[in-house]
Amino acid sequence: MPIVTIQITREGSGPGRKAATAEEKAALIKGSSQLLLDVLNKPLDATFVVIEEVEMENFGWGGLPVAERRKKQEVSSK
Amino acid sequence: MPIVTIQITREGSGPGRKAATAEEKAALIKGSSQLLLDVLNKPLDATFVVIEEVEMENFGWGGLPVAERRKKQEVSSK
Amino acid sequence: MPIVTIQITREGSGPGRKAATAEEKAALIKGSSQLLLDVLNKPLDATFVVIEEVEMENFGWGGLPVAERRKKQEVSSK
Amino acid sequence: MPIVTIQITREGSGPGRKAATAEEKAALIKGSSQLLLDVLNKPLDATFVVIEEVEMENFGWGGLPVAERRKKQEVSSK
Amino acid sequence: MPIVTIQITREGSGPGRKAATAEEKAALIKGSSQLLLDVLNKPLDATFVVIEEVEMENFGWGGLPVAERRKKQEVSSK
Amino acid sequence: MPIVTIQITREGSGPGRKAATAEEKAALIKGSSQLLLDVLNKPLDATFVVIEEVEMENFGWGGLPVAERRKKQEVSSK
Repeated sequence: MPIVTIQITREGSGPGRKAATAEEKAALIKGSSQLLLDVLNKPLDATFVVIEEVEMENFGWGGLPVAERRKKQEVSSK
Repeated sequence: MPIVTIQITREGSGPGRKAATAEEKAALIKGSSQLLLDVLNKPLDATFVVIEEVEMENFGWGGLPVAERRKKQEVSSK
Repeated sequence: MPIVTIQITREGSGPGRKAATAEEKAALIKGSSQLLLDVLNKPLDATFVVIEEVEMENFGWGGLPVAERRKKQEVSSK
Repeated sequence: MPIVTIQITREGSGPGRKAATAEEKAALIKGSSQLLLDVLNKPLDATFVVIEEVEMENFGWGGLPVAERRKKQEVSSK
Repeated sequence: MPIVTIQITREGSGPGRKAATAEEKAALIKGSSQLLLDVLNKPLDATFVVIEEVEMENFGWGGLPVAERRKKQEVSSK
Repeated sequence: MPIVTIQITREGSGPGRKAATAEEKAALIKGSSQLLLDVLNKPLDATFVVIEEVEMENFGWGGLPVAERRKKQEVSSK
């Protein structure tokens, strides 16, 4: 009966993409269900997976929206 | 102070619908709030309900996105 | 594939009880699964229910821990 | 390692707005991260914040969708 | 910035155990963080994992607490 | 109708403490409710706050349980 919830920012993993692709999502579903089978012996059919895509401006880290945080880190690493 | 969160796939419950209707959502809100009143004597005004609609490709069961799982089950039941 | 999460405070619904009973929890599970069947035609076997019990001091309403809020309301209603 | 999740209804805080603005979201991120620093001494860099915007018809209080509840309250206060 | 939440029932994966072991939990943390790196190229340091252990009587499937459901399935398979 | 969920590790903020104190929790409840009032003009009475305490071994960062991660960081900073 495991439930795996994966929250990711809505952004592409490569040029020209605006979000995770259906293939990437299927890989997350497959991989996390397999993990529960491998580690805790939970049958694949007993695991639910939910992927939640969070808009960039809705995700904060270090007290800043994540886009601002990244800009700041790029500047500081120059 | 109960909080009820209901996660459902974003899909219609009948032909020509792409998602749960406002009436269906209102019925979920009413029914789950009433349940907390009936079982635990929580006043309606103390219960919050949140409905989260999950895109079909973001929901996995049995290691597969839910649409693929259904196709596979239809094939195996023929 | 619905997932219903029910968050309640950990407290008894009657004298001498410190938490919801197993029977009350079973009633929440049965009732909320039935609701999804009645409203959205979801088979019972497709619905997961998770009950989360929240310690009284971990639940806030009106800017106060819920126990303090209740005391204040009792005073103000005298 | 704190994670703060803030669920709000998707509606504007002023005329002509349909949702919280990016500035308001940034203020929620900053304020809640700062709170964890002030109260529990958690470094800003250890705190994640997720803002979830819930459609009005997906949020219930008092057994009703929140828009209906507000209408009813306005009527009863006349 | 991914957050992975893994909800499992509090029960042992072998005789004499009452819950997942620290090693099993570490394997879930490692495996799910690695999955996000493999699939979406998210650095390990950007991923939080939270494991939530749900009491058996707090988890429902098929309209029943999960322990009752298992008993029923054993009977029906005889 | 905002709901604020604050997930923290179960550990003391000072010597001799094993968890956040009731006072610290009350400060989190007060501060986050006030934040919603300040930023989005939400009345205190419309905000619920839930604090979830996560066992140290149930929280992962950087692919490791959080206690192991801290040890590793201390070593690497010597």
